[in-house]
This record gives sequence, structure tokens and C-alpha cells, in this order.
Amino acid sequence: MRHQMFALLLLLPPVSGWGQSPDSTLQQSALARFRVEPLLQGLSQPVAMVFLPGGQALIAERNTATLSRWDGRSRDLVRIQDLPPIVIGEDAGIFDVILHPRFQDNGWIYLSYCDGIPERSTLAVDRFKLVRNRITGRERLFTANAYSEDLLHHGGRLAIRDSFLFITIGDRHHQDRAQELTNHAGTIARLHDDGRVPTDNPFVGRDNALPEIWSYGHRNPLGLVFHPTTGDLWSHEHGPLAGDELNLIRRGANYGWPVISYGWEYEGGPIGKGIVMQDGMEQPLWAWSMGIAPSGMLFYQGTAFPGWQGSLFSGAMSKRHLNRLEIRDGRVVLEERLMVRQWGRIRCVAEGPDGLVYICSDDGKILRLRPD
Amino acid sequence: MRHQMFALLLLLPPVSGWGQSPDSTLQQSALARFRVEPLLQGLSQPVAMVFLPGGQALIAERNTATLSRWDGRSRDLVRIQDLPPIVIGEDAGIFDVILHPRFQDNGWIYLSYCDGIPERSTLAVDRFKLVRNRITGRERLFTANAYSEDLLHHGGRLAIRDSFLFITIGDRHHQDRAQELTNHAGTIARLHDDGRVPTDNPFVGRDNALPEIWSYGHRNPLGLVFHPTTGDLWSHEHGPLAGDELNLIRRGANYGWPVISYGWEYEGGPIGKGIVMQDGMEQPLWAWSMGIAPSGMLFYQGTAFPGWQGSLFSGAMSKRHLNRLEIRDGRVVLEERLMVRQWGRIRCVAEGPDGLVYICSDDGKILRLRPD
Repeated sequence: MRHQMFALLLLLPPVSGWGQSPDSTLQQSALARFRVEPLLQGLSQPVAMVFLPGGQALIAERNTATLSRWDGRSRDLVRIQDLPPIVIGEDAGIFDVILHPRFQDNGWIYLSYCDGIPERSTLAVDRFKLVRNRITGRERLFTANAYSEDLLHHGGRLAIRDSFLFITIGDRHHQDRAQELTNHAGTIARLHDDGRVPTDNPFVGRDNALPEIWSYGHRNPLGLVFHPTTGDLWSHEHGPLAGDELNLIRRGANYGWPVISYGWEYEGGPIGKGIVMQDGMEQPLWAWSMGIAPSGMLFYQGTAFPGWQGSLFSGAMSKRHLNRLEIRDGRVVLEERLMVRQWGRIRCVAEGPDGLVYICSDDGKILRLRPD
Repeated sequence: MRHQMFALLLLLPPVSGWGQSPDSTLQQSALARFRVEPLLQGLSQPVAMVFLPGGQALIAERNTATLSRWDGRSRDLVRIQDLPPIVIGEDAGIFDVILHPRFQDNGWIYLSYCDGIPERSTLAVDRFKLVRNRITGRERLFTANAYSEDLLHHGGRLAIRDSFLFITIGDRHHQDRAQELTNHAGTIARLHDDGRVPTDNPFVGRDNALPEIWSYGHRNPLGLVFHPTTGDLWSHEHGPLAGDELNLIRRGANYGWPVISYGWEYEGGPIGKGIVMQDGMEQPLWAWSMGIAPSGMLFYQGTAFPGWQGSLFSGAMSKRHLNRLEIRDGRVVLEERLMVRQWGRIRCVAEGPDGLVYICSDDGKILRLRPD
């Protein structure tokens, strides 16, 4: 019956029917000339956007912990009701929302958010279905053992492939925990899509290690995606000052935080011993020049921007731009900074069913990039 | 009479008559599809290349301290004789060769090289003219007060505009000297094109400061060019591990080395107190991701690669690629890494009179990039 609701959504007009905003701004980039159309405004820190079959979208607002269904044609923004209790404040709230790859068959939606109480919070991941804009069948899949007395460095990005769910968990502002396997802080976890722990996870059966951990030594990863053709898992993470990293995530690997880092303490001074490489710890594939605070991640596959096919997009909160990387033979060969300081801080990037690029701007807007 | 020699050169066929090499390799980049033609091989660390009127070129080889005149048509490489004594070994040898902007009128060629003895060496800059492949009229313009007992971190790049000569001087592997104005190590010097000290230099008349200094706090700048339209002076410098910088050079400014840096000691550990910014010290415009060891610098102006017009090229020795930056509104908005790990370490980039891009590769080659 739940699936019938989505069948109704499929009958709605596709997103490409949405009108062009008169506020659009012409942009010229290396490989594309495009306009930026503000499609929606008045949101509060939109952090994730995912398109439903039929072209409507779910939009999560971080610091108000709201989830809404947006119809680009009617412009209605309908609140999703019956969310779980969510801790808000500082960096807390909702962190991500994604669909199961077989969503059309099973209707599962995955949500990560801040659970607990403000003085003792952690990251939780639920899945649920939607019926008439209400959550139903909600199941708790994961409660991170990553509690903190403040509301910082949650991570919380989600990705699913081949029925495995991956979850980034920040170091919770307790950096030494990222090297410990007895808690989930500073790790990427891997679960079955129903929350069970896979028996082939790298630390299953090891003493003093949690079996959900897939990789560790992370600081605050706010981007996680599978490459659509190679199936590789990519993540980026906020380093300290100027230490943001792009990483290819491998089973059981240690990404080094806080032992090695290309960044500095915000108040000045080195991280630990101030070293950038060490045996047994992974090197990033890219360390952004002087830091950009990346959030959200997309391997663009659309045809609307042929020059951007295969590019890795992410928002950049500190430098306020849309970041584009080209990767060839496992190396970053091009970085482009688009729309620099023209909009709010960009927290998410999505590809629409129309092949256009959608971004969430911290000034409460959803923007769409359209070739000119 | 000397000028008559150059009149003869003008009669030679232009460089565009040079044949295409059968070894050329097709390359695909973001904005250009091009072939790489090896034009000349068997050199020893070519470090600078400058085109003479008429299309011949002067090529300096660093570690053999030779200067040659190359005729692309006959393929002859004729040694320039009567060079001054030049110290070689480690990083020593010839550092740069450039022409005066009014070379066609005055015939002046500027050469920077390692002077002294290996146990007490410094940077020297001479100018001279050429008659029948021999140096004549040589004048010593500058002997840096930047002596060292080893042969590292010389700098030595040259640029002339409006009859002013600018010279980069490395910190000579004595990093604290870069913050002292009593010596030239770690500075960029400014002279009249005949070697006189301009009376309007920023530290003229100041106690305990050398009057030639224009800017300071540099580590080892191996790139220095004027922007062809804005007239701004740009430089890049080798940082320590991962600390390479692109800087816009301003009168009297302090670029921070070794007090602030985006790099680390090669043996691990922070530089000094491990801070990246401080009042009164300039921030770089770009810090290359994890370091590239830039050498040579060109603002490309040619029409052969329309997509590259205005781009800032440099060689990248550690990552073995040709680096391209796009700068807009004073910010780097794109970095592209071309020809990654396909050739030797690239020490210089030049634009030919044919509008093509020429590069010097450490495996002894001169390569030309031609649109496909």
C-alpha cells in the first residue's frame, strides 16, 4: 500500500517543468556557461536534497530538524510529520537523507540525525517509509557509540550500494577517539541496509574493536558517495585549519587523524607532532588549498553539462563556492571554484532528474544551475 | 655593430616553420586537446628558455652552467662562449636568462647564476650582449649578500618592467635570514636595469636594511613574472613539505617565511610555532595541494590555445606535471594539472613567437605543446 503512494508521485510532472526564475544570474566557468536560478528560499540551513521518482524532492533542513517534500511545479513545501525526536543546536540537527537504491520497490528512506540530549548526544540512523507525508515503519538502524557533551563534529553522511549502508561519524570534537576502535567517533561504519552488522567487516571478532567500523582516523566527514561506475567509495572531511581532505575509502584503512594532518589547530600551532605522513596511514588524494570546509558530494553524470560529466562536486562552506574536481587515473587533475562568494555557504549538491545541478545554500535557498 | 648581429637573426625563418615530431603524444585537457612534440633532447636540466627576435631561442642548462642558442630550423645548438665562472653542484649553476623588454634596441641579456666558490656561494646577476655567439660587454649588476656554505635555495628568477629589474633570492637554507633585512637571503630585490639602486625602494635610508630589497620573508622563489596587462608582479616559491605558495608581490611586504607557512619540515614537525597567518604578513593567493615544487612561470597570451589565454603556467617538479591556474578577481578559481608524470620534472615554461607553449623537461628535453 505504501508503494502505491509513490506510484501517485510518479504521475506528477517532471521537475524539468519548473519555471525559470527571473533572478537567475549568468555564470561563466571553464567548461560551462550557466545560469543560477533560485528555486526556493526561506529555508533554514538546507543540508540534504534527494529526488523522489516522479521528480519531487525531499529536503532536510539541518538546524530546524525538519524534513519536507517539495513539489517544484506547485511550489508547495509539505512538512513530513512524525519524525523522531532530534537534538538541535550548534552543529546538531539532521545530517543527511537518502533513498535506498531500490526505493521504487521497497520505499525505504534513510535519515541521520542527532540523538540523545544536548549534554550527551550522538549520531543515529533510522529508516522509514512515507505515507501521506507521514513517517511510518520507522526502524532504528544504528546508534553510534560516539557520545559527546557538546554538539560538534557529528559527520552523518550516508551512502548505500549493494545493500550495504555506509555512515560517516565525526570525531565529536574528541580527536584522540578517531584512532580508537572501541568507539565509533572518527570512523566510517558499514551495515547491511537493515542495520545488521556484516560478518565480513574488517574488525569483526577483533578484541577492543567495534564490528561496525569500516575505516577510521577521520575528523568530520561531511561527504560520502559511491562512484557511479567504478563503485569506489569516496569521502571528504573537514580537517582543522586548512586540513580538508579528499579520500578514497578502503576496507579497514586508517586515515590518520589526529596523528597526521595537512592542517593546523584553529588557534595556531601544529596538530600533535605536526607530521603529514606516517606508515600505515592513508594519504589523502587532495588537500584543498588553505581549506574550503567541504559539505555534500556528487559525481555528476548528467547530460545537461557534458563538460562536467564525471566531475566530483561539493559545497565549500568557508570559501563559499561550489567546488568541482576532475579525477583521472586516481589523481585529481583539475580543481575549479564556481560561484565564489556569490551565495550562502553551500551544504549540499544534487543532480536532478533533469540532469541539472541543484545546490543548497545556507542563506535558505535551493539553487539550480542551468546551461545558458 | 652588435645590433646588426640581431638584425641578421631577424632574417631567419620563424619558429613556426619547425617540423612536427613523429613522437608527439596526444593529450586531452579541460580546455584544449593538444600534442606534445619533443623538439630537442640530450640537454642537462634545461632551466630557462627565451625566444630571440626572429624565432631562435636561448636555452640555459642549470647544472652544466651552459647557455646555447638554438635554431629550430637547422636544429643546431650553438654554445654561447665567454660566460662568467659559474659554481655548479647540488642546486647551483645557471638560474635564469631573460631579455630586456627593449632588447631589439639595446641587445641586453640578463643572466643569474651561482657565484663564488662551492664553500661560499651566492647569487649574481650580470647583463651582456651577444656577438657571434660570444658574450661581450658583460657587466655585473648585482651580487647578493646571501652567502652560504651549501648550494641550496638560490632563487634567481628575473623579471624586468619599466626599466626595473626584479630578482628573487632564496633563503640559502638559512631560514631565519628571510626575516632579516640586513642580507638579501629570502627577498625579492629591485634594481634599475643597469644595476643602480632605485631611490624609491621601500627600505632605502632605513637602518639595518639593504636598499635593494623590495619584499621579504620568501623561502625559495623559482618563478617571477609581470602580468602582461595589469603589470602586477607575481611569484611562486617552494615552501617546505607541502608549503608551496603563489604570491602577488607588493612593495615592502613580508611574505612570512619562516614565521608563517602552509608547510612542514621535511623530516616531520611544524615550521617554527606552526602557524599559518599573522598580522603584518601576507597570505598566499594559493597554496598547492600537498606541494608541487613549482619552477618557471608564464602568463599565456597566445592565440593558439584560446581557452588558455590569461592562464598562469608553471612547471611542477615534485608532481611532474605542467600546472595551469586561472585567476579571476584576484582569486585562483581553477587549477589544472597537465601531462602528469609523463615527462621529466618541468623547470620552465615559455610562449613561443608562434603562440605555442614550450617547456623544459628535466630528462633533457624541450617539448612543444601544439593544438590538435
